[in-house]
Amino acid sequence: MNISWTKTLVDHPAYQKLKTLSKNPFDLTSLPDHSERIDQFMLEAEGWTYLYGTERIDPSVMDALYSLAKEAEALPKMQAMQAGEEINISEKRQVLHTAMRALSSSTKEANLAKGEIEKIKKFIKETEEFTDYVTVAIGGSDLGPRALFQSLAYLKKNGRNAHFISNVDPDDAAAVLKGLDLSKTLFAVVSKSGTTLETLTNETIVREALEDKGLDPKNHILAITQKGSQMDDLSRYRACFYLFDFVGGRYSATAAPGGLLLSFTLGIEPYLELLKGAEAMDNHARTAPPEENLPLTLALLGIWNRNFLDLPTVAVIPYSEALAKLPAHLQQLDMESNGKHVDRGGKKVSFQTGPILWGEPGTNAQHSFFQLIHQGTSPIPLEFIAFRRNQYQKDLDVQGTSSEEKLFANVLAQSIAFAVGEKNDNPNKECLGNRPSSLLVGDRLDPKTMGSLFALYEHKVAFQGFIWGINSFDQEGVQLGKRLAAGVLERMQGEGKPFPLADRLLEKAKWAP
Amino acid sequence: MNISWTKTLVDHPAYQKLKTLSKNPFDLTSLPDHSERIDQFMLEAEGWTYLYGTERIDPSVMDALYSLAKEAEALPKMQAMQAGEEINISEKRQVLHTAMRALSSSTKEANLAKGEIEKIKKFIKETEEFTDYVTVAIGGSDLGPRALFQSLAYLKKNGRNAHFISNVDPDDAAAVLKGLDLSKTLFAVVSKSGTTLETLTNETIVREALEDKGLDPKNHILAITQKGSQMDDLSRYRACFYLFDFVGGRYSATAAPGGLLLSFTLGIEPYLELLKGAEAMDNHARTAPPEENLPLTLALLGIWNRNFLDLPTVAVIPYSEALAKLPAHLQQLDMESNGKHVDRGGKKVSFQTGPILWGEPGTNAQHSFFQLIHQGTSPIPLEFIAFRRNQYQKDLDVQGTSSEEKLFANVLAQSIAFAVGEKNDNPNKECLGNRPSSLLVGDRLDPKTMGSLFALYEHKVAFQGFIWGINSFDQEGVQLGKRLAAGVLERMQGEGKPFPLADRLLEKAKWAP
Repeated sequence: MNISWTKTLVDHPAYQKLKTLSKNPFDLTSLPDHSERIDQFMLEAEGWTYLYGTERIDPSVMDALYSLAKEAEALPKMQAMQAGEEINISEKRQVLHTAMRALSSSTKEANLAKGEIEKIKKFIKETEEFTDYVTVAIGGSDLGPRALFQSLAYLKKNGRNAHFISNVDPDDAAAVLKGLDLSKTLFAVVSKSGTTLETLTNETIVREALEDKGLDPKNHILAITQKGSQMDDLSRYRACFYLFDFVGGRYSATAAPGGLLLSFTLGIEPYLELLKGAEAMDNHARTAPPEENLPLTLALLGIWNRNFLDLPTVAVIPYSEALAKLPAHLQQLDMESNGKHVDRGGKKVSFQTGPILWGEPGTNAQHSFFQLIHQGTSPIPLEFIAFRRNQYQKDLDVQGTSSEEKLFANVLAQSIAFAVGEKNDNPNKECLGNRPSSLLVGDRLDPKTMGSLFALYEHKVAFQGFIWGINSFDQEGVQLGKRLAAGVLERMQGEGKPFPLADRLLEKAKWAP
Repeated sequence: MNISWTKTLVDHPAYQKLKTLSKNPFDLTSLPDHSERIDQFMLEAEGWTYLYGTERIDPSVMDALYSLAKEAEALPKMQAMQAGEEINISEKRQVLHTAMRALSSSTKEANLAKGEIEKIKKFIKETEEFTDYVTVAIGGSDLGPRALFQSLAYLKKNGRNAHFISNVDPDDAAAVLKGLDLSKTLFAVVSKSGTTLETLTNETIVREALEDKGLDPKNHILAITQKGSQMDDLSRYRACFYLFDFVGGRYSATAAPGGLLLSFTLGIEPYLELLKGAEAMDNHARTAPPEENLPLTLALLGIWNRNFLDLPTVAVIPYSEALAKLPAHLQQLDMESNGKHVDRGGKKVSFQTGPILWGEPGTNAQHSFFQLIHQGTSPIPLEFIAFRRNQYQKDLDVQGTSSEEKLFANVLAQSIAFAVGEKNDNPNKECLGNRPSSLLVGDRLDPKTMGSLFALYEHKVAFQGFIWGINSFDQEGVQLGKRLAAGVLERMQGEGKPFPLADRLLEKAKWAP
């Protein structure tokens, strides 16, 4: 396969076509006269129903978007990624998080993943006397597992619980440790490099807390790290699980960081189901033709809103309390991957890349920031996620309808309200409409569905990066702050090189050692 | 006082001046040669140190911004608000959340507030046998109290805990109720109107859960509502606390919704301290001259970034884990207040109003979306919040420095890195700089400080609304969705008026009753 990796968004013929089309995007306020759009713009895949007739698109826009995908070789690039090509060019790495759930594959990388799963199974059996599991991690090793755990907490085993220590703010560790019976607690310290400052600091706090209670840290702390890192040391950890060079931190939640957590708190079966859901979506992303490809279609609609309708943000609104932590994970996944200003050739791009992604669950968000989306001056494209059935199956009819019905009615009503708006003689009551949204509907948020959803967004982000022509798999922008922080820390101790800005800030902020 | 309420942002002479100045904003990459800016652009008030030399401003911009404030009569409007003028014109209401903490005042409204505080004191004494307190609420009655509780949880009494049921998703209530000993649990149902559908639905679920355990709901459920609402009914509630017509939901956290929660979980003293901190900031906002006025200065810098540098979002990044829920509260406060497209006269505005506010705590955010801010194509103004001392005073030196030091070093380093950026021969490693930020520093996040911070942001939002010339105190935009949801619910039951769009969506989403 001879893929042209150097082209960017603006190098494709479809780009100009889309620019022209974007001058007259579909007027969603006319949607009531075009309800057939709901049937026309939908897609079904991997158990999901995706409805996007409430986006500002029409058939010619969709044709041009799919042309863009083909011109940008989005699918061949996805295939190359999953086949293990070294597409993370700046770091000279493969990008093979998909191998972490390739249960039906027997590539070298898939076999490594399966080896870790076997280790997890064994470990869970050996730690049955423990009740609590604390993930000590930051960034991708933290937000992904948090989102996974919260999404499936309805399956939690009796007497098992999960906690997270992440921030270098000492109050984070203090608040978590305060409430725990340490004699029954496991701590999973996650750092691929084995050198993440926040995480090592919190590990030291945990070790001291265990020792204070007369407990041996080696019995309670396990390491999740890269083979050969300073944390790969069985003399200091109860066990070591491996992260691989070819899996980036923000793509690692379905590997050991999420796998151990879910297996301990829910059981091994839900974890394996999660992997199956992710694997199925990986296969779909790689093989489904563009027009039937769910993550690619989400990616294209995102590019339409970002690059052609000039909307700088996207809000993900799950109508599911269990997905309350999903937006924070997606925020990291998306913004760290695609927040780039140079293309793969190192040239500054002339167009917008990754959007600002944010969100909160509905219906809560309706009582919070939806006012601004309905009546503010900034249109915000929305990605709604909803399910037909709840998790706990504890529902009740109130005023003639169940909560499940109310929830689903609200998400549909909002997608209509944002699209259509409402005229009113009182301008203060007018809703302008033409706020684009799409709706992803699943049956029930179970482990397999969650695996599928996780992988769906990973591939949406990857497809967007492929089409923009950027490298979604490094994060060079975070290095500067780390280096400067080390410099400021030295100045705090009255040491280090001259750093007048830091000195002034420390003085004026009245920092006292 | 003869205030001109009808003028908007663009009607003031300073607006044109600022437009001109905005063509050449200060180049922050030159900051290392201008470290005196740190001393020049700072403000001290109410225990806070506010450093804004890392904004893209210079003395002439600040002069013009303060002129704008004067021309817009920002301070007289704040005084009118706090004096009880009926400034919520669309709803013909006073805006007197400040009266809820006017402990040293004896206006009618302050006395009403003090009456409620006395009721809280009495109630807390009568409920000593309870251990858990569940707030059943949505929107402002939920997000504000959540943020307050999380911020001060280090003061939690042994054996006392707080929970929240908010979403109409039945899994929200199910997950919370599952873990509780209902015989020892109080439920505070909060709805000013007494008719909030989500909240009443969850109340019914709570009542049934209590009855299932043979418990009398009347002993466990209290109402926080407006006098005379259908919830003001002592035959059904253990107690009724009042919300007042002149306090909007998103401004109500320091009244009974937060007051009962904090008094039950932490004690009455921390609540009173919180009120004192808020009252002091209320007084400051009303009386400090523009150049010394902290919320007004934040408001003006926000307007500079929004209306003159054309930055559509603002990220609030507290370097404090205890403030993890603050951004969600501020998101509601700010976006519901200022997400408006008409001025107070009902005319469509020709300029941008409320920004998209979002955020997560640092240092976590550094490992999440900071990549995009450093290297993405969308500059994002940042409001950093940091403290000199932690809450739990459980810190440890690791690699020669404490966590407190690492945390503070990081926030300073990031403010420098975002401003200055870094050239690099490898464009993929280059950080562009000129990302504006400001830093609010407090000593320690205690109840008084939290009250001050809460009020600071309330007044920042109010000042921005005053200067834009919009009504920050209604939320007409949320009505359409509510009405449409009722319509969709009817269609789900096969009833109601024809609604082809809803019917199509229900069919294609494969909704089955």
